[in-house]
Amino acid sequence: MLVGSKNYRTIEASEDRSFVKIIDQTCLPFKFKIIHLKTLDEVVRAIKNMQVRGAPLIGVTAAYGFALSMNCDNSDNSLDKCKNDLVNARPTAVNLSWAVNQVYDALIKCPPKERAELGWDLAMSLANQDVEKNISIGLHGFNLFKSSNKKTINILTHCNAGWLATVDHGTALSPIFKLFDEGFDVHVWVDETRPRNQGLSLTAWELNQYKIKHTVITDNAGGLLMKEGLVDFVIVGADRIALDGQVCNKIGTYLKAVVAKENSIPFYVAAPTSTIDINFSGETRNFEIECRDPSEIMTMKGEDKLGNIIEVNLGNSPAYNPAFDVTPPMYVSKLICEKGVFDPCRIRDIIK
Amino acid sequence: MLVGSKNYRTIEASEDRSFVKIIDQTCLPFKFKIIHLKTLDEVVRAIKNMQVRGAPLIGVTAAYGFALSMNCDNSDNSLDKCKNDLVNARPTAVNLSWAVNQVYDALIKCPPKERAELGWDLAMSLANQDVEKNISIGLHGFNLFKSSNKKTINILTHCNAGWLATVDHGTALSPIFKLFDEGFDVHVWVDETRPRNQGLSLTAWELNQYKIKHTVITDNAGGLLMKEGLVDFVIVGADRIALDGQVCNKIGTYLKAVVAKENSIPFYVAAPTSTIDINFSGETRNFEIECRDPSEIMTMKGEDKLGNIIEVNLGNSPAYNPAFDVTPPMYVSKLICEKGVFDPCRIRDIIK
Repeated sequence: MLVGSKNYRTIEASEDRSFVKIIDQTCLPFKFKIIHLKTLDEVVRAIKNMQVRGAPLIGVTAAYGFALSMNCDNSDNSLDKCKNDLVNARPTAVNLSWAVNQVYDALIKCPPKERAELGWDLAMSLANQDVEKNISIGLHGFNLFKSSNKKTINILTHCNAGWLATVDHGTALSPIFKLFDEGFDVHVWVDETRPRNQGLSLTAWELNQYKIKHTVITDNAGGLLMKEGLVDFVIVGADRIALDGQVCNKIGTYLKAVVAKENSIPFYVAAPTSTIDINFSGETRNFEIECRDPSEIMTMKGEDKLGNIIEVNLGNSPAYNPAFDVTPPMYVSKLICEKGVFDPCRIRDIIK
Repeated sequence: MLVGSKNYRTIEASEDRSFVKIIDQTCLPFKFKIIHLKTLDEVVRAIKNMQVRGAPLIGVTAAYGFALSMNCDNSDNSLDKCKNDLVNARPTAVNLSWAVNQVYDALIKCPPKERAELGWDLAMSLANQDVEKNISIGLHGFNLFKSSNKKTINILTHCNAGWLATVDHGTALSPIFKLFDEGFDVHVWVDETRPRNQGLSLTAWELNQYKIKHTVITDNAGGLLMKEGLVDFVIVGADRIALDGQVCNKIGTYLKAVVAKENSIPFYVAAPTSTIDINFSGETRNFEIECRDPSEIMTMKGEDKLGNIIEVNLGNSPAYNPAFDVTPPMYVSKLICEKGVFDPCRIRDIIK
């Protein structure tokens, strides 16, 4: 997608397949900075530190982790270490283990000296597939949105499920880019998304690069806006979807979903089918919710008067920082994936 | 209430009635700082800048504004200016205009040279009344909470409706202080309350001074906690309550109220009867919602590594910053005021 006047993907292999280039998302919105990852450890660290984040993107990044690792050690032990380190980098997003298992299963069956080449091919293929899926999600979502008869279509989104959360195009934002490209008058309410402010830092930045109208709001404000008729649709991404349609996504999603339903506002979840956890049978509630460091709540990163990016301390209280919550399917109007638009209670229709 | 080992009120007249002492709440939690207000303009500025905030406290502070003003100019013109400047300092909290009207109506009928003395008497009387009302609210709320059969009573609160929002004891926190005093095992989930972080900065600070167990969470996390059974009660304050029971309170209250109801968790509003706007007839939706500067969202104040309090910039996006929202009575289990515990749909029973 566009950064200034140039198109980028969030992750790209170097031509000689010796490293991968990523956008360091912890520097946004202040600085657009490309960094190089050369080893498995650097990949794991980039995922843990959220230099790359977003369920689809961390899946693809993990695939590149295998490729980088195979460059220097193509043994079975090395493969096992890749699998273990990558899956444990972040526990909630199922796309991560989905990608890791795909790549591992292919490489373990392959002769060691061919593993590096196959690893790079697989990672690049997963990256390209991600882009294609997101374009499809954009089209399916666009068809839902375009039926609105509003002069301006007001859409609320939470966290960042834009192109920065994927290889390109995004999931929840993909239909919004499409609406804009097709000439619709669209305005996006951007939840700031505490504690890490992905809405304020990433979604607003993306929309600004694309010149789409948007307004940042606190996570607290969405209820008032919905009640006052200022929101036509809500759309978010997902980190894991259970077979019974429960959606695990960024903390705060559930609050917005319940209040959207209460105000008869469609609430859409956009995600590739790789987000569906086929090992989670219906009615399960045992999502593993990642709890991140409380310092994410008690500190804030920003730009000081001299333009330096610094962290300030907000207080010294005990804090609790779950990163995700779970939204039952009764609050989800539709699930938009690359295969089409589905009822969240009928997930099995998607994956069969 | 306790700060360290010493008892304070949030506002106190000097013995010679030449100034009032307030706690500058914009310095908390980093610094406990008492400042002196000597003129009407200083009072208006302190209210606008939220050095004093909380509906009950700004009402009492406004009363002291009259007293200070009468010290140097006891004319009718001066009274009119007081009324005008104070009512417009912040538009939403009805306690402000309630207090202003009470004091104005008494002073305008009084001979000018007696106005200063009467002004100080009235302000001090309103302050003392506020304390008495909050003690009653604490007792009524305590009776609701103590029936819980949980080992630890987990209470979620939003914003700050503690003693810092009043002259002393607080509204929503008053029953919690009482529970603690009576030996109950109580734990408070403290919403950070963006954009101004009154939960993180003020409520957590108050609870820490009083040694009550508490945990700060993002505004996004309350839904997950309620769904997981980790919240037994929600209690908040109010800035204005309409005759039909609609509650105007800090932005984000409505989201929590809807989700509390969805999870069958009692949602209580604690406020003195002066918060009821007797000019608002039933079914009205025309609350004046104060929209504050978007910079409150796009900047954050905190402590740098050297211990200096500085403001950092979070980004440069357009932002929208409504400070309050409105919760319909169907989501409010009970209204706790100094006169007792009421059904929010039967406000007229309280004021008759």
